[in-house]
Amino acid sequence: MFVLVNLKAYAADAVGIATTAREVSEESGVRIAVAPQAARLAAVADTGVETWAQHVSPVEHGSHTGSTLAEAAAMAGADGTLINHSERRLRLADIDGALDAAERAELETIVCANNPAQVGAAAALGPDAVAVEPPELIGGDVSVSQADPDIVEDAVAAAEAVDDSVDVLCGAGISSGEDLDAAGELGAEGVLLASGVAKADDPRAALADLVEPLS
Amino acid sequence: MFVLVNLKAYAADAVGIATTAREVSEESGVRIAVAPQAARLAAVADTGVETWAQHVSPVEHGSHTGSTLAEAAAMAGADGTLINHSERRLRLADIDGALDAAERAELETIVCANNPAQVGAAAALGPDAVAVEPPELIGGDVSVSQADPDIVEDAVAAAEAVDDSVDVLCGAGISSGEDLDAAGELGAEGVLLASGVAKADDPRAALADLVEPLS
Amino acid sequence: MFVLVNLKAYAADAVGIATTAREVSEESGVRIAVAPQAARLAAVADTGVETWAQHVSPVEHGSHTGSTLAEAAAMAGADGTLINHSERRLRLADIDGALDAAERAELETIVCANNPAQVGAAAALGPDAVAVEPPELIGGDVSVSQADPDIVEDAVAAAEAVDDSVDVLCGAGISSGEDLDAAGELGAEGVLLASGVAKADDPRAALADLVEPLS
Amino acid sequence: MFVLVNLKAYAADAVGIATTAREVSEESGVRIAVAPQAARLAAVADTGVETWAQHVSPVEHGSHTGSTLAEAAAMAGADGTLINHSERRLRLADIDGALDAAERAELETIVCANNPAQVGAAAALGPDAVAVEPPELIGGDVSVSQADPDIVEDAVAAAEAVDDSVDVLCGAGISSGEDLDAAGELGAEGVLLASGVAKADDPRAALADLVEPLS
Repeated sequence: MFVLVNLKAYAADAVGIATTAREVSEESGVRIAVAPQAARLAAVADTGVETWAQHVSPVEHGSHTGSTLAEAAAMAGADGTLINHSERRLRLADIDGALDAAERAELETIVCANNPAQVGAAAALGPDAVAVEPPELIGGDVSVSQADPDIVEDAVAAAEAVDDSVDVLCGAGISSGEDLDAAGELGAEGVLLASGVAKADDPRAALADLVEPLS
Repeated sequence: MFVLVNLKAYAADAVGIATTAREVSEESGVRIAVAPQAARLAAVADTGVETWAQHVSPVEHGSHTGSTLAEAAAMAGADGTLINHSERRLRLADIDGALDAAERAELETIVCANNPAQVGAAAALGPDAVAVEPPELIGGDVSVSQADPDIVEDAVAAAEAVDDSVDVLCGAGISSGEDLDAAGELGAEGVLLASGVAKADDPRAALADLVEPLS
Repeated sequence: MFVLVNLKAYAADAVGIATTAREVSEESGVRIAVAPQAARLAAVADTGVETWAQHVSPVEHGSHTGSTLAEAAAMAGADGTLINHSERRLRLADIDGALDAAERAELETIVCANNPAQVGAAAALGPDAVAVEPPELIGGDVSVSQADPDIVEDAVAAAEAVDDSVDVLCGAGISSGEDLDAAGELGAEGVLLASGVAKADDPRAALADLVEPLS
Repeated sequence: MFVLVNLKAYAADAVGIATTAREVSEESGVRIAVAPQAARLAAVADTGVETWAQHVSPVEHGSHTGSTLAEAAAMAGADGTLINHSERRLRLADIDGALDAAERAELETIVCANNPAQVGAAAALGPDAVAVEPPELIGGDVSVSQADPDIVEDAVAAAEAVDDSVDVLCGAGISSGEDLDAAGELGAEGVLLASGVAKADDPRAALADLVEPLS
C-alpha cells in the first residue's frame, strides 16, 4: 500500500510532517509520500521523504507565467504529482496535457476522480494510477472504504476494464489503520489522506496508527 | 451518416441556414442538424430542422446565473447538444455533469475530444457519441479524414475498446462529399462541420455537395 | 427605480413571470425587466417585457462554440445584460471584453461586484451601472439594504469617486417594497432580485408588493 | 526604477540568472527582482536576490490542493507577487482575494492589466502597483514605451485618477536601457521584462545594458 499525505494549503508544519513521514516510512517499511504546496517542495524534499506535487500545469517550457511547470517541480525534488484533485479540477484536455508534462519530467502520476465513470475516463488517459474520492466524504470523519465500499470496488472494476495496468487508490475520510486495511481489501493499492495527518495533534501517532496493520 | 452544422458565433443567417438544412435533409434523406447560439435555438427550431445546442452546463435547476441549463435548451427546441467542444473545453467532472444534465432533459449527446486517448476517456462517461477533432485542423481547408485518417480509425478503436455502443463522429476541415465519404469508410457515423457551410457563399450548394454521395 | 428580476436557472415559468412583470410595470409605472436563460430570451421578449441577458461572452463574431454572443442575445430580444454576476464571475479582462461586446450589440450593462472596492473597479471599466451584491446575503431572507446599509452607501461612494455617470444598483435578499425603499434612500438607482419573485407562490403579488411604495 | 525579471516557465537557469541579477543590482544600485516558478522560489531566494512570485491564489489556509498559497510563497522567500499577469488572468473577485492574501503574507503586489481602463480598475482594488502590458507587444521586439507611449501615459493617468498612491510599471518588449529610460519619462516607476533577460545569450550583459542609463 502507498500512503500519500496531501498537505493542501493547511497551516501545517510541512517540514516537520515530512520528517515524521520519512521516519515512520523507514520504521514500518510502508511507502509514504508527502505533497506540499509547490513553493515548499524543495524544503520537503530536503527531509528525504518521497515528495509529490499537488498539481502540474499542462504546459511545456515557455511563456506561462503563474503555471506549475512539471520540470520545475521535478527540479525542486518532486517524484510524482497529483492531477485533477477535486480542489483543482482540470479540463479533460488539460488532464491529458498534464500527464504528458509529468511524463516528460519523469514524475509518477495519480489522476483523481470522484466516481467510477470518471475513474474509467481518467484511466483511458494512461496515468500510473487513479484515485477515487467521493466529494461528499472529503474532509469528513467517515472513510470512503467504510461508508461507500461499492464505490471503491466499482472504481477498481472501471479502471481495470479500460487499462488493467493502472492502479487505483482511494481517498476521502481515511484516518485509521482500519480504513487502510479496508481499502486494500477492496482492491485499492493505496490511499490519499490529508487532514487526518496534517491537522492531527500528533502527526506521528496518526501516521503510526495508520500503517500499523501493514507493518 | 449524421451531419451536424455548428454555427458557432458566426455572423451567419441562422434561420436561413436552418431552413436550407431542413430542405436538403428532406430532399436527400440524410440526417442534418444545426447548432446555433443558445439565444437562437428557438428561432432555428421553428424552421423544423433538427436543432442542437452547442453546450450545456453541468447544473440542475437552481441558482446558476449565466449558465446554459439543459432543460431551457430543450424547451427552446433543442434535440441534442455538443459537450466539450474544443472552443468550450470542460473539466472532466463537468463533462460528466453535463451528460447527466442532458440526459435529464432528454437531449442526445456528442462529446468532443481532440485525440484518440481523450475519445476513449469521453466514451467512458457514457455519451451517445464522441467526436474527434484534431485542433490543428479546425477551421482549415484539409479534412481530418484525408489529412489524418489514422486519427479517425484510432478514435473509433479507442471508443470501441471502452464502450462499443458509443458512436464516433469526426470533425475539422470537413467540406465536401468526398470528405464525408472518407469519414464513413474510416468508421465514423457522422461529421461535424462549421465554416464549410456557415461561411459558404451558397450554403445550399455546400450542403447539397456534401450529402451528394449519400443520396 | 429599476427592478431587474433574474430568473437564474430556476424551474420557474419564465413566460408567465415575464407577462406578469410587464403588466405590473405598466400598472405601476415602475421599470421592471426580466432576465431569463439565454435559450429563453426570445420567449420572454415576446411577452413585451423589458428583457435582459444574464451574461454575454467577451467575444466578437467568430469561432466561439458555446459562447453567449451579445449580438445573438440582442437578436433574440435582449435590451441589456448582466455581466460578472456572483454565479458567473469573469476575469477582469473579460469583463472589459464583455462590455465592449454589449456596447457593439447596443445592450445596456450592469456589472455585478461583491464589495465597494470591486464596485469601484467595475465602474472604471465604463458600464452603464454596477450592482453590489454581498455574496453572504444572496438567496437569503435579509436584504442588503437592511442588513448592511453601509455597503450600499460605500458602493455608491466608490462608484462616484471613479465615474459619477455610473448608476449603482443593489441586490441580495431584496423582496419587499420596504427593501426597495431603503435601497433608494441609500442612493441605489435600482435593485436586482431573483428568488423573491421567481420562487414566490404568487409572483404577481410579490412584484406588486415590491413596487407599491413607488407607485 | 524597479526592474522585475519574470522567468515564466522558461527553460532558463533560474539560480544563475538570480545570482547575476543580485550582482548587477548591487553594482548598479538599481532595484532588480526575479520571479521564478513557485517551485523554484526557495532556490532563487537563496541567491540573495529580491524574489517575487508569479501568482498567488485568492485563498487562505485550508483545503485548497494545487493552489499557490501566499504564505507558502513568503515562507519560501518571496518578497512580492505578480497578480493577474496576461498569462494568468484572474476573475475580478479573485484579484481582490489575491490582494488580500498577499497583504496577509506581507508580499508587495503588482497587478497586471492590458489597457488603461483595466489599470484604473486594478488600481481601485488597492495594490502597491499596477503594470500595463499590451498583449500584442508581449514577447516581441518592440517596447511598449516606444511603440505605444500613449498607453503608458494613459495608464499613469488612469491609475492616478483612481488612487494616486498606486505606482505604475510597464511591460512588454522592454529590453534596452533606452526602453527603460523612455518608460521612466512617461511616468512609469518600473518595468517588467522576461525574454529580454531570461532568454538572452548573456543575461549579465542584457541586465547591465538595461540598467546602464540609471547607474
